[in-house]
Amino acid sequence: MLLDNLNNHKIYLASKSPRRRELLAGMGIDFDILTTDVEETYDPAWSPEEIVMHLSRLKLSPIDMAQYDPKTIFITCDTIVVVDGQIIGKPKDKADAERMLKMLSGNTHTVYSGLTVATPQKQLTNYRATDVVFETLSDDMIQYYIDTYQPFDKAGSYGVQEWIGRVGIREVRGSFYNVMGLPTRLLWTMLEQMCL
Amino acid sequence: MLLDNLNNHKIYLASKSPRRRELLAGMGIDFDILTTDVEETYDPAWSPEEIVMHLSRLKLSPIDMAQYDPKTIFITCDTIVVVDGQIIGKPKDKADAERMLKMLSGNTHTVYSGLTVATPQKQLTNYRATDVVFETLSDDMIQYYIDTYQPFDKAGSYGVQEWIGRVGIREVRGSFYNVMGLPTRLLWTMLEQMCL
Repeated sequence: MLLDNLNNHKIYLASKSPRRRELLAGMGIDFDILTTDVEETYDPAWSPEEIVMHLSRLKLSPIDMAQYDPKTIFITCDTIVVVDGQIIGKPKDKADAERMLKMLSGNTHTVYSGLTVATPQKQLTNYRATDVVFETLSDDMIQYYIDTYQPFDKAGSYGVQEWIGRVGIREVRGSFYNVMGLPTRLLWTMLEQMCL
Repeated sequence: MLLDNLNNHKIYLASKSPRRRELLAGMGIDFDILTTDVEETYDPAWSPEEIVMHLSRLKLSPIDMAQYDPKTIFITCDTIVVVDGQIIGKPKDKADAERMLKMLSGNTHTVYSGLTVATPQKQLTNYRATDVVFETLSDDMIQYYIDTYQPFDKAGSYGVQEWIGRVGIREVRGSFYNVMGLPTRLLWTMLEQMCL
Protein backbone atom coordinates (compact mmCIF):
# COMPACT_ATOMS: atom_id res chain seq x y z
CA MET A 1 0.00 0.00 0.00
CA LEU A 2 1.05 3.58 -0.66
CA LEU A 3 1.62 4.38 3.04
CA ASP A 4 4.37 1.68 3.24
CA ASN A 5 6.13 3.11 0.17
CA LEU A 6 5.95 6.63 1.59
CA ASN A 7 8.05 5.51 4.57
CA ASN A 8 11.07 5.57 2.21
CA HIS A 9 10.45 9.20 1.33
CA LYS A 10 10.88 12.49 3.15
CA ILE A 11 7.77 14.60 2.54
CA TYR A 12 7.41 18.38 2.75
CA LEU A 13 4.16 20.27 2.59
CA ALA A 14 4.86 23.82 1.43
CA SER A 15 1.88 25.58 3.00
CA LYS A 16 1.04 28.03 5.79
CA SER A 17 -2.52 26.69 6.10
CA PRO A 18 -3.34 24.80 9.32
CA ARG A 19 -6.28 23.16 7.51
CA ARG A 20 -4.01 21.69 4.82
CA ARG A 21 -1.70 20.33 7.52
CA GLU A 22 -4.61 18.71 9.33
CA LEU A 23 -6.00 17.20 6.11
CA LEU A 24 -2.62 15.76 5.11
CA ALA A 25 -2.08 14.33 8.62
CA GLY A 26 -5.53 12.71 8.40
CA MET A 27 -4.34 10.83 5.29
CA GLY A 28 -1.92 8.95 7.55
CA ILE A 29 1.10 10.67 5.98
CA ASP A 30 4.16 11.87 7.95
CA PHE A 31 5.54 15.19 6.74
CA ASP A 32 7.32 18.37 7.67
CA ILE A 33 6.36 21.93 6.85
CA LEU A 34 8.34 24.19 4.58
CA THR A 35 7.02 27.63 3.79
CA THR A 36 7.85 29.56 0.66
CA ASP A 37 6.98 33.16 -0.15
CA VAL A 38 5.98 33.98 -3.68
CA GLU A 39 4.05 36.79 -5.24
CA GLU A 40 0.88 35.11 -6.51
CA THR A 41 0.63 36.61 -10.00
CA TYR A 42 -1.17 35.20 -13.02
CA ASP A 43 -2.62 36.24 -16.35
CA PRO A 44 -6.26 37.24 -15.75
CA ALA A 45 -7.13 35.79 -19.18
CA TRP A 46 -6.40 32.26 -17.91
CA SER A 47 -9.11 29.81 -16.87
CA PRO A 48 -9.53 29.02 -13.12
CA GLU A 49 -7.98 25.56 -13.74
CA GLU A 50 -4.87 27.13 -15.34
CA ILE A 51 -4.58 29.73 -12.57
CA VAL A 52 -4.62 27.27 -9.64
CA MET A 53 -2.25 24.84 -11.38
CA HIS A 54 0.11 27.72 -12.17
CA LEU A 55 -0.02 29.05 -8.59
CA SER A 56 0.67 25.60 -7.11
CA ARG A 57 3.78 25.32 -9.35
CA LEU A 58 4.78 28.87 -8.45
CA LYS A 59 4.77 28.02 -4.72
CA LEU A 60 7.38 25.34 -5.51
CA SER A 61 9.67 27.67 -7.45
CA PRO A 62 11.68 29.16 -4.54
CA ILE A 63 12.80 25.67 -3.39
CA ASP A 64 16.32 24.69 -4.45
CA MET A 65 15.53 21.05 -5.33
CA ALA A 66 19.19 20.19 -6.07
CA GLN A 67 20.09 20.34 -2.37
CA TYR A 68 17.53 17.63 -1.42
CA ASP A 69 17.77 13.85 -1.52
CA PRO A 70 16.22 12.44 -4.76
CA LYS A 71 13.57 10.65 -2.65
CA THR A 72 12.21 13.91 -1.21
CA ILE A 73 8.62 14.76 -2.14
CA PHE A 74 7.25 18.31 -2.11
CA ILE A 75 3.52 19.10 -2.06
CA THR A 76 2.03 22.52 -2.90
CA CYS A 77 -1.59 23.55 -3.33
CA ASP A 78 -3.53 26.68 -4.22
CA THR A 79 -7.27 27.27 -3.87
CA ILE A 80 -9.56 29.92 -5.39
CA VAL A 81 -13.31 30.48 -5.30
CA VAL A 82 -15.19 31.46 -8.47
CA VAL A 83 -18.70 32.93 -8.26
CA ASP A 84 -20.66 34.55 -11.14
CA GLY A 85 -17.51 34.29 -13.28
CA GLN A 86 -15.48 36.31 -10.76
CA ILE A 87 -12.47 35.05 -8.82
CA ILE A 88 -12.63 35.85 -5.10
CA GLY A 89 -9.64 35.37 -2.84
CA LYS A 90 -9.17 36.21 0.85
CA PRO A 91 -11.16 39.18 2.19
CA LYS A 92 -9.28 42.41 2.92
CA ASP A 93 -11.40 43.38 5.94
CA LYS A 94 -14.82 42.90 7.53
CA ALA A 95 -16.70 44.86 4.85
CA ASP A 96 -15.00 42.76 2.17
CA ALA A 97 -15.93 39.51 3.96
CA GLU A 98 -19.56 40.73 4.12
CA ARG A 99 -19.52 41.55 0.41
CA MET A 100 -18.16 38.08 -0.44
CA LEU A 101 -20.66 36.19 1.74
CA LYS A 102 -23.52 38.18 0.17
CA MET A 103 -22.24 37.08 -3.26
CA LEU A 104 -22.25 33.42 -2.12
CA SER A 105 -25.68 33.60 -0.40
CA GLY A 106 -28.44 31.79 -2.32
CA ASN A 107 -25.93 31.05 -5.08
CA THR A 108 -23.70 28.25 -6.40
CA HIS A 109 -19.93 28.78 -6.55
CA THR A 110 -17.00 26.59 -7.55
CA VAL A 111 -13.89 25.89 -5.48
CA TYR A 112 -10.78 25.13 -7.57
CA SER A 113 -7.60 23.65 -6.12
CA GLY A 114 -4.37 23.19 -8.05
CA LEU A 115 -2.04 20.54 -6.65
CA THR A 116 1.63 19.94 -7.44
CA VAL A 117 3.58 16.88 -6.27
CA ALA A 118 7.29 16.99 -7.07
CA THR A 119 10.59 15.25 -6.46
CA PRO A 120 13.95 16.68 -7.61
CA GLN A 121 13.47 14.59 -10.85
CA LYS A 122 9.77 14.67 -11.58
CA GLN A 123 6.79 16.99 -11.27
CA LEU A 124 3.05 16.33 -11.51
CA THR A 125 0.29 18.98 -11.48
CA ASN A 126 -3.47 18.53 -11.55
CA TYR A 127 -6.61 20.20 -10.18
CA ARG A 128 -10.06 19.52 -8.77
CA ALA A 129 -13.23 21.62 -8.97
CA THR A 130 -16.14 21.28 -6.53
CA ASP A 131 -19.50 23.05 -6.70
CA VAL A 132 -20.98 24.38 -3.45
CA VAL A 133 -24.63 25.50 -3.15
CA PHE A 134 -25.34 28.02 -0.38
CA GLU A 135 -28.80 28.64 1.03
CA THR A 136 -29.87 32.27 1.42
CA LEU A 137 -27.93 33.72 4.38
CA SER A 138 -29.63 36.46 6.40
CA ASP A 139 -27.61 39.57 7.32
CA ASP A 140 -27.76 38.41 10.95
CA MET A 141 -26.20 35.07 10.02
CA ILE A 142 -23.42 36.78 8.02
CA GLN A 143 -22.69 39.17 10.94
CA TYR A 144 -22.67 36.36 13.50
CA TYR A 145 -20.35 34.23 11.36
CA ILE A 146 -17.81 36.97 10.64
CA ASP A 147 -17.77 38.17 14.28
CA THR A 148 -17.46 34.68 15.73
CA TYR A 149 -15.16 32.97 13.20
CA GLN A 150 -13.10 35.86 11.70
CA PRO A 151 -12.73 34.14 8.32
CA PHE A 152 -10.08 36.58 7.01
CA ASP A 153 -7.52 33.89 6.10
CA LYS A 154 -9.96 31.96 3.91
CA ALA A 155 -10.60 32.18 0.16
CA GLY A 156 -14.24 33.23 -0.26
CA SER A 157 -14.47 34.27 3.46
CA TYR A 158 -15.75 30.95 4.74
CA GLY A 159 -14.67 27.58 6.07
CA VAL A 160 -16.94 24.70 5.05
CA GLN A 161 -15.95 22.90 8.28
CA GLU A 162 -17.20 25.83 10.42
CA TRP A 163 -20.65 26.97 11.58
CA ILE A 164 -21.58 28.51 8.22
CA GLY A 165 -20.83 25.21 6.46
CA ARG A 166 -23.18 23.33 8.79
CA VAL A 167 -26.14 25.70 8.77
CA GLY A 168 -25.76 27.52 5.44
CA ILE A 169 -24.80 24.95 2.78
CA ARG A 170 -27.45 22.99 0.92
CA GLU A 171 -25.21 20.83 -1.20
CA VAL A 172 -21.63 19.98 -2.13
CA ARG A 173 -21.00 18.29 -5.50
CA GLY A 174 -17.57 16.71 -5.65
CA SER A 175 -14.73 16.57 -3.11
CA PHE A 176 -15.66 18.03 0.29
CA TYR A 177 -11.97 18.08 1.30
CA ASN A 178 -11.17 20.17 -1.77
CA VAL A 179 -13.54 22.81 -0.34
CA MET A 180 -11.68 22.57 2.99
CA GLY A 181 -8.43 23.32 1.14
CA LEU A 182 -6.80 20.10 -0.10
CA PRO A 183 -8.17 17.62 -2.67
CA THR A 184 -7.07 14.63 -0.61
CA ARG A 185 -8.15 11.84 -2.99
CA LEU A 186 -6.38 13.55 -5.92
CA LEU A 187 -3.25 13.86 -3.77
CA TRP A 188 -3.43 10.14 -2.93
CA THR A 189 -3.62 9.25 -6.66
CA MET A 190 -0.73 11.59 -7.53
CA LEU A 191 1.44 10.14 -4.74
CA GLU A 192 0.67 6.65 -6.10
CA GLN A 193 1.75 7.80 -9.59
CA MET A 194 4.94 9.20 -8.06
CA CYS A 195 5.92 6.32 -5.74
CA LEU A 196 4.34 2.99 -6.69
CA MET B 1 -31.54 35.01 14.45
CA LEU B 2 -32.44 31.47 15.43
CA LEU B 3 -29.60 31.16 17.97
CA ASP B 4 -31.09 34.04 20.03
CA ASN B 5 -34.53 32.36 20.05
CA LEU B 6 -33.01 29.05 21.09
CA ASN B 7 -31.73 30.67 24.30
CA ASN B 8 -35.33 30.53 25.57
CA HIS B 9 -35.52 26.77 25.02
CA LYS B 10 -34.01 23.77 26.75
CA ILE B 11 -32.71 21.40 24.08
CA TYR B 12 -32.08 17.66 24.36
CA LEU B 13 -30.30 15.54 21.78
CA ALA B 14 -31.42 11.92 22.20
CA SER B 15 -28.37 10.17 20.76
CA LYS B 16 -25.42 8.04 21.84
CA SER B 17 -23.30 9.15 18.86
CA PRO B 18 -20.29 11.36 19.68
CA ARG B 19 -20.31 12.56 16.04
CA ARG B 20 -23.89 13.85 16.33
CA ARG B 21 -22.98 15.68 19.54
CA GLU B 22 -19.99 17.31 17.86
CA LEU B 23 -22.04 18.32 14.80
CA LEU B 24 -24.81 19.86 16.92
CA ALA B 25 -22.26 21.73 19.06
CA GLY B 26 -20.68 23.09 15.85
CA MET B 27 -24.05 24.64 14.96
CA GLY B 28 -23.61 26.95 17.97
CA ILE B 29 -26.44 25.25 19.86
CA ASP B 30 -26.39 24.50 23.62
CA PHE B 31 -27.91 21.17 24.54
CA ASP B 32 -27.90 18.24 26.91
CA ILE B 33 -27.81 14.56 26.11
CA LEU B 34 -30.65 12.19 26.84
CA THR B 35 -30.37 8.59 25.73
CA THR B 36 -33.32 6.37 25.00
CA ASP B 37 -33.30 2.65 24.28
CA VAL B 38 -35.67 1.34 21.66
CA GLU B 39 -35.75 -1.77 19.56
CA GLU B 40 -35.18 -0.46 16.02
CA THR B 41 -37.85 -2.40 14.14
CA TYR B 42 -39.49 -1.49 10.85
CA ASP B 43 -41.44 -3.03 7.98
CA PRO B 44 -38.89 -4.19 5.37
CA ALA B 45 -41.39 -3.24 2.64
CA TRP B 46 -40.94 0.45 3.50
CA SER B 47 -38.75 2.82 1.47
CA PRO B 48 -35.44 4.03 3.01
CA GLU B 49 -37.02 7.48 3.58
CA GLU B 50 -39.94 5.95 5.50
CA ILE B 51 -37.62 3.74 7.55
CA VAL B 52 -35.31 6.53 8.79
CA MET B 53 -38.22 8.89 9.52
CA HIS B 54 -39.98 6.10 11.44
CA LEU B 55 -36.82 5.21 13.40
CA SER B 56 -36.17 8.85 14.35
CA ARG B 57 -39.76 9.06 15.72
CA LEU B 58 -39.32 5.72 17.46
CA LYS B 59 -36.24 7.02 19.35
CA LEU B 60 -38.49 9.75 20.77
CA SER B 61 -41.22 7.37 21.94
CA PRO B 62 -39.77 6.38 25.38
CA ILE B 63 -39.66 10.06 26.49
CA ASP B 64 -42.54 11.14 28.73
CA MET B 65 -43.07 14.58 27.16
CA ALA B 66 -45.74 15.58 29.72
CA GLN B 67 -43.14 15.96 32.46
CA TYR B 68 -41.13 18.57 30.52
CA ASP B 69 -41.58 22.34 30.18
CA PRO B 70 -43.53 23.25 26.99
CA LYS B 71 -40.43 25.09 25.69
CA THR B 72 -38.29 21.93 25.72
CA ILE B 73 -37.06 20.74 22.32
CA PHE B 74 -36.05 17.12 21.63
CA ILE B 75 -33.93 16.09 18.63
CA THR B 76 -33.60 12.50 17.37
CA CYS B 77 -31.92 11.18 14.23
CA ASP B 78 -31.41 7.83 12.52
CA THR B 79 -29.04 7.04 9.64
CA ILE B 80 -28.90 4.08 7.25
CA VAL B 81 -26.75 3.28 4.22
CA VAL B 82 -28.31 1.80 1.06
CA VAL B 83 -26.14 0.13 -1.58
CA ASP B 84 -27.37 -1.93 -4.54
CA GLY B 85 -30.89 -1.73 -3.08
CA GLN B 86 -29.76 -3.31 0.20
CA ILE B 87 -29.84 -1.61 3.62
CA ILE B 88 -26.61 -1.97 5.55
CA GLY B 89 -26.34 -1.01 9.20
CA LYS B 90 -23.46 -1.35 11.66
CA PRO B 91 -21.06 -4.27 11.07
CA LYS B 92 -21.25 -7.24 13.44
CA ASP B 93 -17.50 -7.97 13.36
CA LYS B 94 -14.34 -7.53 11.30
CA ALA B 95 -15.44 -9.91 8.53
CA ASP B 96 -18.75 -8.07 8.26
CA ALA B 97 -16.96 -4.69 8.05
CA GLU B 98 -14.77 -6.10 5.24
CA ARG B 99 -17.85 -7.37 3.40
CA MET B 100 -19.54 -3.95 3.66
CA LEU B 101 -16.49 -1.99 2.50
CA LYS B 102 -16.12 -4.35 -0.50
CA MET B 103 -19.76 -3.58 -1.38
CA LEU B 104 -19.05 0.17 -1.22
CA SER B 105 -15.74 -0.03 -3.17
CA GLY B 106 -15.97 1.34 -6.74
CA ASN B 107 -19.68 1.91 -6.18
CA THR B 108 -22.19 4.67 -5.35
CA HIS B 109 -24.31 4.38 -2.22
CA THR B 110 -26.88 6.61 -0.55
CA VAL B 111 -26.89 7.77 3.07
CA TYR B 112 -30.38 8.47 4.48
CA SER B 113 -30.99 10.33 7.73
CA GLY B 114 -34.39 10.77 9.34
CA LEU B 115 -34.66 13.72 11.72
CA THR B 116 -37.35 14.48 14.29
CA VAL B 117 -37.63 17.78 16.16
CA ALA B 118 -40.32 17.82 18.85
CA THR B 119 -41.71 19.84 21.73
CA PRO B 120 -44.41 18.54 24.11
CA GLN B 121 -46.98 20.16 21.72
CA LYS B 122 -45.59 19.75 18.24
CA GLN B 123 -43.56 17.28 16.20
CA LEU B 124 -41.77 17.66 12.85
CA THR B 125 -40.07 14.84 10.90
CA ASN B 126 -38.12 15.03 7.67
CA TYR B 127 -35.14 13.32 5.97
CA ARG B 128 -32.14 13.95 3.75
CA ALA B 129 -30.46 11.62 1.24
CA THR B 130 -26.85 12.05 0.07
CA ASP B 131 -25.05 10.06 -2.64
CA VAL B 132 -21.45 9.04 -1.98
CA VAL B 133 -19.15 7.73 -4.74
CA PHE B 134 -16.28 5.53 -3.56
CA GLU B 135 -13.17 4.85 -5.64
CA THR B 136 -12.02 1.24 -5.87
CA LEU B 137 -10.50 0.28 -2.50
CA SER B 138 -7.69 -2.29 -2.50
CA ASP B 139 -7.81 -5.13 0.06
CA ASP B 140 -4.76 -3.53 1.74
CA MET B 141 -6.61 -0.24 2.13
CA ILE B 142 -9.67 -1.98 3.60
CA GLN B 143 -7.48 -3.95 6.06
CA TYR B 144 -5.53 -0.84 7.10
CA TYR B 145 -8.72 1.15 7.63
CA ILE B 146 -10.51 -1.49 9.72
CA ASP B 147 -7.40 -2.22 11.83
CA THR B 148 -6.60 1.45 12.44
CA TYR B 149 -10.08 2.96 12.81
CA GLN B 150 -12.25 0.06 14.09
CA PRO B 151 -15.42 1.37 12.39
CA PHE B 152 -17.77 -1.02 14.22
CA ASP B 153 -20.10 1.68 15.55
CA LYS B 154 -20.74 3.19 12.11
CA ALA B 155 -23.54 2.46 9.61
CA GLY B 156 -21.84 1.12 6.45
CA SER B 157 -18.54 0.53 8.36
CA TYR B 158 -16.98 3.89 7.57
CA GLY B 159 -16.68 7.46 8.79
CA VAL B 160 -16.49 10.03 5.99
CA GLN B 161 -14.45 12.27 8.31
CA GLU B 162 -11.79 9.54 8.75
CA TRP B 163 -8.85 8.32 6.63
CA ILE B 164 -11.06 6.33 4.24
CA GLY B 165 -13.16 9.43 3.52
CA ARG B 166 -10.08 11.43 2.58
CA VAL B 167 -8.33 8.89 0.36
CA GLY B 168 -11.19 6.71 -0.89
CA ILE B 169 -14.12 8.99 -1.79
CA ARG B 170 -14.38 10.54 -5.24
CA GLU B 171 -17.50 12.55 -4.75
CA VAL B 172 -20.29 13.52 -2.37
CA ARG B 173 -23.56 14.82 -3.84
CA GLY B 174 -25.64 16.59 -1.22
CA SER B 175 -25.08 17.25 2.48
CA PHE B 176 -21.63 16.13 3.71
CA TYR B 177 -22.77 16.45 7.33
CA ASN B 178 -25.64 14.07 6.63
CA VAL B 179 -22.98 11.48 5.71
CA MET B 180 -21.22 12.24 9.03
CA GLY B 181 -24.48 11.49 10.85
CA LEU B 182 -26.61 14.63 11.18
CA PRO B 183 -28.19 16.69 8.35
CA THR B 184 -27.25 19.98 10.00
CA ARG B 185 -28.85 22.35 7.49
CA LEU B 186 -32.14 20.43 7.61
CA LEU B 187 -32.03 20.62 11.42
CA TRP B 188 -31.47 24.39 11.26
CA THR B 189 -34.56 24.80 9.01
CA MET B 190 -36.69 22.57 11.24
CA LEU B 191 -35.62 24.49 14.37
CA GLU B 192 -36.59 27.73 12.58
CA GLN B 193 -40.02 26.23 11.77
CA MET B 194 -40.39 25.26 15.43
CA CYS B 195 -39.17 28.46 17.11
CA LEU B 196 -39.31 31.56 14.87
